[in-house]
Amino acid sequence: MLLESLRKEVLRANQEIARRGLAPHTFGNASGIHRSGSQVLVVIKPSGVDYATLTAVDMVVTDLDSKIVDGRLRPSSDLETHTLLYREFPEIGGIAHTHSEFATAWAQACRPIPCLGTTHADYFHGPVPVTEPLTAEEVAEGYVRNTGAVIIRRFRSECLDPIAVPGVLVAGHAAFAWGRTAAEAVENADVLEYIARLAYRSIVLEASESGIPVYVSEHHYLRKHGPTATYGQR
Amino acid sequence: MLLESLRKEVLRANQEIARRGLAPHTFGNASGIHRSGSQVLVVIKPSGVDYATLTAVDMVVTDLDSKIVDGRLRPSSDLETHTLLYREFPEIGGIAHTHSEFATAWAQACRPIPCLGTTHADYFHGPVPVTEPLTAEEVAEGYVRNTGAVIIRRFRSECLDPIAVPGVLVAGHAAFAWGRTAAEAVENADVLEYIARLAYRSIVLEASESGIPVYVSEHHYLRKHGPTATYGQR
Amino acid sequence: MLLESLRKEVLRANQEIARRGLAPHTFGNASGIHRSGSQVLVVIKPSGVDYATLTAVDMVVTDLDSKIVDGRLRPSSDLETHTLLYREFPEIGGIAHTHSEFATAWAQACRPIPCLGTTHADYFHGPVPVTEPLTAEEVAEGYVRNTGAVIIRRFRSECLDPIAVPGVLVAGHAAFAWGRTAAEAVENADVLEYIARLAYRSIVLEASESGIPVYVSEHHYLRKHGPTATYGQR
Amino acid sequence: MLLESLRKEVLRANQEIARRGLAPHTFGNASGIHRSGSQVLVVIKPSGVDYATLTAVDMVVTDLDSKIVDGRLRPSSDLETHTLLYREFPEIGGIAHTHSEFATAWAQACRPIPCLGTTHADYFHGPVPVTEPLTAEEVAEGYVRNTGAVIIRRFRSECLDPIAVPGVLVAGHAAFAWGRTAAEAVENADVLEYIARLAYRSIVLEASESGIPVYVSEHHYLRKHGPTATYGQR
Repeated sequence: MLLESLRKEVLRANQEIARRGLAPHTFGNASGIHRSGSQVLVVIKPSGVDYATLTAVDMVVTDLDSKIVDGRLRPSSDLETHTLLYREFPEIGGIAHTHSEFATAWAQACRPIPCLGTTHADYFHGPVPVTEPLTAEEVAEGYVRNTGAVIIRRFRSECLDPIAVPGVLVAGHAAFAWGRTAAEAVENADVLEYIARLAYRSIVLEASESGIPVYVSEHHYLRKHGPTATYGQR
Repeated sequence: MLLESLRKEVLRANQEIARRGLAPHTFGNASGIHRSGSQVLVVIKPSGVDYATLTAVDMVVTDLDSKIVDGRLRPSSDLETHTLLYREFPEIGGIAHTHSEFATAWAQACRPIPCLGTTHADYFHGPVPVTEPLTAEEVAEGYVRNTGAVIIRRFRSECLDPIAVPGVLVAGHAAFAWGRTAAEAVENADVLEYIARLAYRSIVLEASESGIPVYVSEHHYLRKHGPTATYGQR
Repeated sequence: MLLESLRKEVLRANQEIARRGLAPHTFGNASGIHRSGSQVLVVIKPSGVDYATLTAVDMVVTDLDSKIVDGRLRPSSDLETHTLLYREFPEIGGIAHTHSEFATAWAQACRPIPCLGTTHADYFHGPVPVTEPLTAEEVAEGYVRNTGAVIIRRFRSECLDPIAVPGVLVAGHAAFAWGRTAAEAVENADVLEYIARLAYRSIVLEASESGIPVYVSEHHYLRKHGPTATYGQR
Repeated sequence: MLLESLRKEVLRANQEIARRGLAPHTFGNASGIHRSGSQVLVVIKPSGVDYATLTAVDMVVTDLDSKIVDGRLRPSSDLETHTLLYREFPEIGGIAHTHSEFATAWAQACRPIPCLGTTHADYFHGPVPVTEPLTAEEVAEGYVRNTGAVIIRRFRSECLDPIAVPGVLVAGHAAFAWGRTAAEAVENADVLEYIARLAYRSIVLEASESGIPVYVSEHHYLRKHGPTATYGQR
């Protein structure tokens, strides 16, 4: 029953990626994880299937080692990136991978997105990080798993909290975002695209890349997150 | 009864912000004020509620000191900026706050929008001003109220008339626009976004930032405003 | 009867301007002219009326001196530009004035649009010209009529044929396009916007402003126009 | 019967060009070829007909020398480019010609599109090539056929495989894409536009034009193509 509901949630998250235009063609995928109970299960979109024809039963169920537990179709080719992130970030419950226009442009330019305004500060604590490129050895050894590995390496080297920084750019590739649920992951992917768009326009207008003062970004981040949050109806 | 009608007007203004794409997610809000009679009342959108599910009764009613008079929900976190603007600009009857793409880019670049053409001159008398950044002390003391304070400071230091200049960019944040009603405020926010878009494209094409001659901008502004207006069906 | 049909055609042309997004708000207008017979009559959109509520009877009928012959509403404030163009360009039967995004950006940058490709060459013979700015005297003496005058001056000084060059940019203002009918004028305004968009993108990619060789642009222009045309079903 | 089905497929491909916004107005066309059996037949869109009114019987049937075999209308003016590509690239079954915004901008800038990310590498093996401009002699001798000739010359001089590089930019003109069927040609034209858009944004953000390492692009290309493909449900 729980799995059935997660399958539907992951289906909706994938449909939402398409509806918001975050991944033309079959670029992009979303997954969710069921962590409580005796078994940890990941639900992910099948590989290369048109968003328009996806149904809940098409979703593929795997364990944290990417071994298929249930499903008639092959899982997304990005599965091993998802499972590695779930293993390393126990706080997260959903992941969205997109090739959205502006986030991908920053990723292709191998540049982190500086925090240039409060729209960014409300969702991301500090710049949106970008990974290093994979080495030839990493590609040969396991391209997809090592895509996850370079993300983890960036978060460790900068001591980043995946809840405070709910997304990343993979150099020369595109974006991954996550959240407490698959739906929140897609929302963060959508916000990331808007932040990337605003920053692109601002850089064209010669905005300073040093960004807004830390005392402003801290204020905004804490306004929406943490024990003293004043935003919304909580 | 009057309040009921203002609630509906403010609801429609908020929905219009969403319909025109001026504020993705729950960024952005509109308010209106009822000034005649014994009591001055402000009606504003509740905080962080999805535009799609808003109803007239969700609107929050406050006085000019931001004290809640009626409503079940928490008001927009930007309330104190709105009430300060209403206190300082007695001519205005509605305010719209957006994070629209191009206006926000100019705000993030901390640049006023020069008057580069007649589309701009028809609506804004001179450049669209940008505030100074808030100081660390202003953020600590009262971020939202002081956002209003830096707007007022900019208008005073340049002797600007809020009816002739119906909007402003807050540095590192986004845009506020206003008008005689909440509906007019949203229309001005929409025009501000289009002006910002045209100016962005023009700057990329290396337009001179000195803009159009003052004798042209004056002609256009007076064509639509003031006692000798010749535009429209009045 | 003829007038009735022209009113409907001009209404449709104005609605088409709105539908194609060529003029946000009430920026923009289209007109048509009836030249055969004893009386020459111009039909134009009323001033500042929302496109959504326009009907055929709202269209205003004037003579070539901009004197109103029929209609309850005030004509577009740009009327005198239209009538001057009709007087000077006897070949044309319709005019469309827009503030479309990219054409307006080129106008605000006071730059002609170079012919950078065959999309342009199929519709415009040579660059899209830009006028000089109006002088202070011209604005004071008659802004709208002199907007027409600077257009005519540009066409005369460069010996341009208004059928081969069916549009112009007015410096610091926006675009006018025309054609044998009001419908063709709007189509040319739409193509002008697309040409302006393509040229903007190309310039960002550092295209040479010298454009395509004349032997290519001539070939393309003649392919669609003149006695040896091979395009379409004629 | 076979021809009937090809006519419908080519109609759908042309409608898809319009639906995806790849060719405003009547710019653009798609064709398909029937190669098996005794007769080789090409089916192509008629010239200058509005996409909205096209029907299957409007499609024009020709042989590989561009001689009309069946159809009431004149074929697309680009027919001879299509037939030359079909003669030289026996592997392909469909061709789509578009004037889509970003691909056309790269063509107008006469620049190949460098491979800046995995979105590109999944579909195009190496940069998207751009032709040389046609000489005055080539235009005079046969503009449309020689448009095909400069494409072939580029592919030969760089030893490119038309299946691995399913499209090209014609300098100062626009894009041609192809595939095993007319539908696949349109899909490749759509992906080419997205690649062109991503590369444009990346170049504005000062991405290095050397692009992603070859070991990454090879990995991605082979992931979707060739005997060891791991993408999709095959």
